[in-house]
Amino acid sequence: MFKKLTAESLGTFWLVFGGCGSAIFAAAYPELGIGFTGVSLAFGLTVLTMAYAVGGISGRHFNPAISIGLAAAGRFPLARLLPYIAAQLVGAILAAGALYLVASGKPGFEAGGFAANGYGAHSPGGYSLLAAFTIETILTAFFLIVILGVTHGRAPTGFAPIAIGLALVLIHLISIPVTNTSVNPARSTSQALFADGWALGQLWLFWAAPILGAVIGAAIWRSFGERG
Amino acid sequence: MFKKLTAESLGTFWLVFGGCGSAIFAAAYPELGIGFTGVSLAFGLTVLTMAYAVGGISGRHFNPAISIGLAAAGRFPLARLLPYIAAQLVGAILAAGALYLVASGKPGFEAGGFAANGYGAHSPGGYSLLAAFTIETILTAFFLIVILGVTHGRAPTGFAPIAIGLALVLIHLISIPVTNTSVNPARSTSQALFADGWALGQLWLFWAAPILGAVIGAAIWRSFGERG
Amino acid sequence: MFKKLTAESLGTFWLVFGGCGSAIFAAAYPELGIGFTGVSLAFGLTVLTMAYAVGGISGRHFNPAISIGLAAAGRFPLARLLPYIAAQLVGAILAAGALYLVASGKPGFEAGGFAANGYGAHSPGGYSLLAAFTIETILTAFFLIVILGVTHGRAPTGFAPIAIGLALVLIHLISIPVTNTSVNPARSTSQALFADGWALGQLWLFWAAPILGAVIGAAIWRSFGERG
Amino acid sequence: MFKKLTAESLGTFWLVFGGCGSAIFAAAYPELGIGFTGVSLAFGLTVLTMAYAVGGISGRHFNPAISIGLAAAGRFPLARLLPYIAAQLVGAILAAGALYLVASGKPGFEAGGFAANGYGAHSPGGYSLLAAFTIETILTAFFLIVILGVTHGRAPTGFAPIAIGLALVLIHLISIPVTNTSVNPARSTSQALFADGWALGQLWLFWAAPILGAVIGAAIWRSFGERG
Repeated sequence: MFKKLTAESLGTFWLVFGGCGSAIFAAAYPELGIGFTGVSLAFGLTVLTMAYAVGGISGRHFNPAISIGLAAAGRFPLARLLPYIAAQLVGAILAAGALYLVASGKPGFEAGGFAANGYGAHSPGGYSLLAAFTIETILTAFFLIVILGVTHGRAPTGFAPIAIGLALVLIHLISIPVTNTSVNPARSTSQALFADGWALGQLWLFWAAPILGAVIGAAIWRSFGERG
Repeated sequence: MFKKLTAESLGTFWLVFGGCGSAIFAAAYPELGIGFTGVSLAFGLTVLTMAYAVGGISGRHFNPAISIGLAAAGRFPLARLLPYIAAQLVGAILAAGALYLVASGKPGFEAGGFAANGYGAHSPGGYSLLAAFTIETILTAFFLIVILGVTHGRAPTGFAPIAIGLALVLIHLISIPVTNTSVNPARSTSQALFADGWALGQLWLFWAAPILGAVIGAAIWRSFGERG
Repeated sequence: MFKKLTAESLGTFWLVFGGCGSAIFAAAYPELGIGFTGVSLAFGLTVLTMAYAVGGISGRHFNPAISIGLAAAGRFPLARLLPYIAAQLVGAILAAGALYLVASGKPGFEAGGFAANGYGAHSPGGYSLLAAFTIETILTAFFLIVILGVTHGRAPTGFAPIAIGLALVLIHLISIPVTNTSVNPARSTSQALFADGWALGQLWLFWAAPILGAVIGAAIWRSFGERG
Repeated sequence: MFKKLTAESLGTFWLVFGGCGSAIFAAAYPELGIGFTGVSLAFGLTVLTMAYAVGGISGRHFNPAISIGLAAAGRFPLARLLPYIAAQLVGAILAAGALYLVASGKPGFEAGGFAANGYGAHSPGGYSLLAAFTIETILTAFFLIVILGVTHGRAPTGFAPIAIGLALVLIHLISIPVTNTSVNPARSTSQALFADGWALGQLWLFWAAPILGAVIGAAIWRSFGERG
């Protein structure tokens, strides 16, 4: 169990350090910046790479909503839910601290929104609470469907990390302008702790919508996918 | 059969929600937008991810032109053609509705062209009807050749979703400026229903050309590819 | 043999239509254009997708320099060299014609340089003949080393099209500013026929350097790679 | 052994020629340049492609910090460390020379910083020495964890070059603005030799931090990953 939790912490550290880090350091660099496309790639590649690295050790969720959705689908024991989520939060928050340390090494640094998620006035594109809730729910639901499908015994061996990682790339390509893309409460929490005060006030949505979406995704999958 | 149709609906929902959604929300975001490269990636990754997820359940076409082309190649029973196409249209239209809901959560939203396909005055780059028809036909023909080739028994197991998904990335990299890229009548129909009136008037081309291309692709493949 | 040559023609058509097409239609589209990154991806994905599709039918070279390099490495019979190269040229020139047809459907179209390769005054970045010759030779040599390595019996099954396709992405990421990237005489010839007159005058380099590079790559590989 | 060292030299040549070359030639090309996203892709694809090509010949490290980290993890014999590192340096420096030859073929060329790594006043984004040291250490540590994980017997066969190559893409997406991204002392050394004088003066950090990170990564992995 210690090994599983270490793997979950490391994976979530990598997800936050790589995904949010690329957003903070590189997205808006003048002329040469990676933009939302590069940030999307970065988030997805954290999961792709670490899922290959610790596959066979932990369930490689790196995301409390995924753990809950997998439990709802009967693929993950309920008893492990809290330790997994705690390990994910620890990894995510340590990563945010490391990002803060590096980012503050740039003269004139201000945390501002860090890479926090938001809606309404704090949505990158000004999208409403309803829009934000809807898209986070839909995207997490499909994320779960993809995860449940590609880790099913019927799927070809070895390709799951590619499909799951690229699903996360896709999710970011769609929704960074709407919510800065969460689908992962640990990622959102880690950033809200270091960002300006509004981020903690909006954090509830980035627990509620991804978890709701994950449970819906699990239910949809059980209705048609479990036996092909 | 219910499971197959559910898989087709979900897959086409994901294609439209992800591909068209990335175009509507993220393509033209100031400075950081994903541009045509990001939209191309998004379309392809919807197919790559969902093809891995529901492989073994449905034929994972997510596209009426593909279903017709596969039927023309003798790889898909004619009797299933209409139910598959209906399921694809249902998924695509539901996705367009969901996109509309999210998009309208941004102050000042106007549907305009949504992510509809067009030619002539409604081609992104002003390309003529002939140019639009030609490129949609050629690209769908090659899409079919790739699909028929990589799902042939001779191809290595497990890689088909990668090849098919990345073929769709490629198709978009080439042709967004010409027609906004269809090669998929369900995708085009879903957007035309929510876009300004011209889109429905031009919709015929995005059924005719992809279907013609798919049948040509199937014929080319049968002439040389079926037995290596 | 007819099937092999058809596969080579189709593959080279796809390479030119997709790679050069993305450059002509989409690279410089205002604000949203795909730039050199998108064009690089497009070239590589043509090879990745078609190599999966016709694998087991032809040697899937799609490039006279590759055919010559493989012959030099003892992996391809000399007797097939001319028919393969002829088939590649036919496919490439047909693709350039199709591109011309589509491109001329845009009001105000002028062929100009089309997607031709050049050096000196016709290098995109103004690089000299020596620089152009050097980089085309080096890149084709490494392209051959990658191809020979990943199609060796020692390499894991099924991954060759990914490695080869992404090698072509990489080659374009490096060298579009220098020569507009050839490493493929068929691709260069097809564009020179439709471009302004200078392109035919510079075409010799885009046969000489890739072929020289391919032979060097084959020799390097034979010196260390054939038996691990 | 000669074959192994040749493979290491060629691979490191390709890494520097492709990665640094894309940065020098293509990153800042007006309007169409590949930016940091393209450079990140290029670095990763050099490793992905060459790791497939010479897999089974050498350990395909292409990086002194990786060799040291693998030795620290007990996966690489200490006796081979110095020859491997020497071969990597030879390949990297030859590549930098070839880049210099091509780059100087552009009128008005000045080497300037070439693609050297730097901190403080020579960090692309002005990040401090501490920030630079921290991020290089963390990224190399995770690079090692990914490498050790995906080359473990438990990981699915054949996917290691994809995971390792894409990990290097990710690492660059995060950190080019901070240090121009090293994680590889051979890459840094090769550029410092051709760049303005400051680069040699800062070179120590790009040996110290990647090696420290690699050893830390190996230690973390041994603590939880060796037996799942």
